[in-house]
Amino acid sequence: MDLGKLGEFGLIDTIKATQKVPDGFTGIGDDCAIIPRGDGLDTLVTTDLLIEDKHFILKEISPYQLGWKSAMVNLSDIAAMGGKPIASFLSVGLPKGLDSDWTDAFMKGYNNASGDCPLLGGDTTSADKLCINVGVLGECSHGKALLRSGAKVGDAIYVTGPLGDSGAGLQIILQGLERDETALKLIERHYMPKARIEEGLQLSDIQGVHSAMDISDGVASDLLHILEASGVGAKVGVLPTSPEMESCCARYGWDAQKMAASAGEDYELLFTADPEVSIPFPVYRIGSIVEGSGIEWASHASYQGFKHF
Amino acid sequence: MDLGKLGEFGLIDTIKATQKVPDGFTGIGDDCAIIPRGDGLDTLVTTDLLIEDKHFILKEISPYQLGWKSAMVNLSDIAAMGGKPIASFLSVGLPKGLDSDWTDAFMKGYNNASGDCPLLGGDTTSADKLCINVGVLGECSHGKALLRSGAKVGDAIYVTGPLGDSGAGLQIILQGLERDETALKLIERHYMPKARIEEGLQLSDIQGVHSAMDISDGVASDLLHILEASGVGAKVGVLPTSPEMESCCARYGWDAQKMAASAGEDYELLFTADPEVSIPFPVYRIGSIVEGSGIEWASHASYQGFKHF
Repeated sequence: MDLGKLGEFGLIDTIKATQKVPDGFTGIGDDCAIIPRGDGLDTLVTTDLLIEDKHFILKEISPYQLGWKSAMVNLSDIAAMGGKPIASFLSVGLPKGLDSDWTDAFMKGYNNASGDCPLLGGDTTSADKLCINVGVLGECSHGKALLRSGAKVGDAIYVTGPLGDSGAGLQIILQGLERDETALKLIERHYMPKARIEEGLQLSDIQGVHSAMDISDGVASDLLHILEASGVGAKVGVLPTSPEMESCCARYGWDAQKMAASAGEDYELLFTADPEVSIPFPVYRIGSIVEGSGIEWASHASYQGFKHF
Repeated sequence: MDLGKLGEFGLIDTIKATQKVPDGFTGIGDDCAIIPRGDGLDTLVTTDLLIEDKHFILKEISPYQLGWKSAMVNLSDIAAMGGKPIASFLSVGLPKGLDSDWTDAFMKGYNNASGDCPLLGGDTTSADKLCINVGVLGECSHGKALLRSGAKVGDAIYVTGPLGDSGAGLQIILQGLERDETALKLIERHYMPKARIEEGLQLSDIQGVHSAMDISDGVASDLLHILEASGVGAKVGVLPTSPEMESCCARYGWDAQKMAASAGEDYELLFTADPEVSIPFPVYRIGSIVEGSGIEWASHASYQGFKHF
């Protein structure tokens, strides 16, 4: 079958079906794999592949920004499980034309994004187009990882920040639009996301937080993973947006709610919790978990997340 | 600086210098990173990036073979530490033109190579050229991993099998030479290496085995890593070769010893041990660890391993 027809998630399901996952392990299907150990902790593992012209345009992004983002999108997966990052691994295929100034700046961004999480290994090779694979190992208390599969009917659905900034920033880059102060802020949000590690750690300690993931493909796609894994549906209202993103959408006639739902790469946390539970940091409630399946949008619109194939 | 001048190992050294590795952890510079835990075990981590036209020619290698090799070259790094593979992670960038028959065959090879080691996660995306990143997690008893840095003056240097088969197989492929029975065996050795996991596990239990790594770039390059990490030198005699490889070298006028030293991708284990210690499986002694630095070849030749940039 053509892979375009099968789709990314069809391919992943096919691969998943060939695996025999040991008892107590969590394999393909959440933000991280979970490997239990004998010391009361679980090891979390995530990995992401970024390819030139698919995930970034080499001439548009600075090496510092690319290094930052490569680390951060993986750290965000550890955050989504409520884990603490322990170590990272970096593989790079480097095209001709990049020099050691470029790799130095890339590593500066990578290291600054990584904070206390050390780079412990990787691989380097030549390539025609730049490709970057990062893997991050994290840890959490045994059985305390925040899964996609725990959402319960009646849960409130929250996000940790406004959505669509990254998508608006990407459009400004792709369409070569004016880079005023507002535009630069949105571009910054696209190139330099911040993983919600501290928030994830706090959520994993709160009884009544039932499910979580990070927003990489857009709520319209990502929330479906929580719903499918949990066997529930959702009603979603207005999504939170920033003033910068709203003013940019107004200027160019873009649909701000659609962009907030569909564009992805915000790397905010999307989680569900008992609505009575108080969350110790600012969050936006975007809806409720209901019986059934799929998302019912209050706006009567129908949004789709980012498609990789 | 131009990365060709800096070289793969220069680049890795530059990156390594920017990292603060926590006490008790082993970072960049061995076959695997080592992360200590609280349960008497260490976690081992390795990762390898394979890129179309750099590491393989898509039209020449079957998807089954490519899947097999992608897993095996990483499992070999776990073997080189004396570890047990626990889980693998696979990222693939898939070009147009590959269909689900191709990915099914790839996964069959990957899974058969992996044996009991489950694939627990990864990433899939589109790409112009096929690129594959595999990461493998392993485990070993705390402090028992076989390092590159333990070689002692007086040690015997061993390899677990004949060398150069893979290199000869690659030349047959690249030069489009006749594929008689002998050639097909060598090609098989190139495309379907076997990680020496059982041997590695046994070596890690033997007192007097002082250092180990796997042969990916050729003894001429790989042994230097052991020597540099251990602050010693080596005298190396005749390298073991298979009858198939010898007959192929005779036919085409290739230098069999040079190919055995330099071609790499044999994925045999290279290790040093007290010469009095008995090794419970067949090995070939290729030389001795001496004071000083670098390799003195008995043949008075000077060999070089594979260069990635």
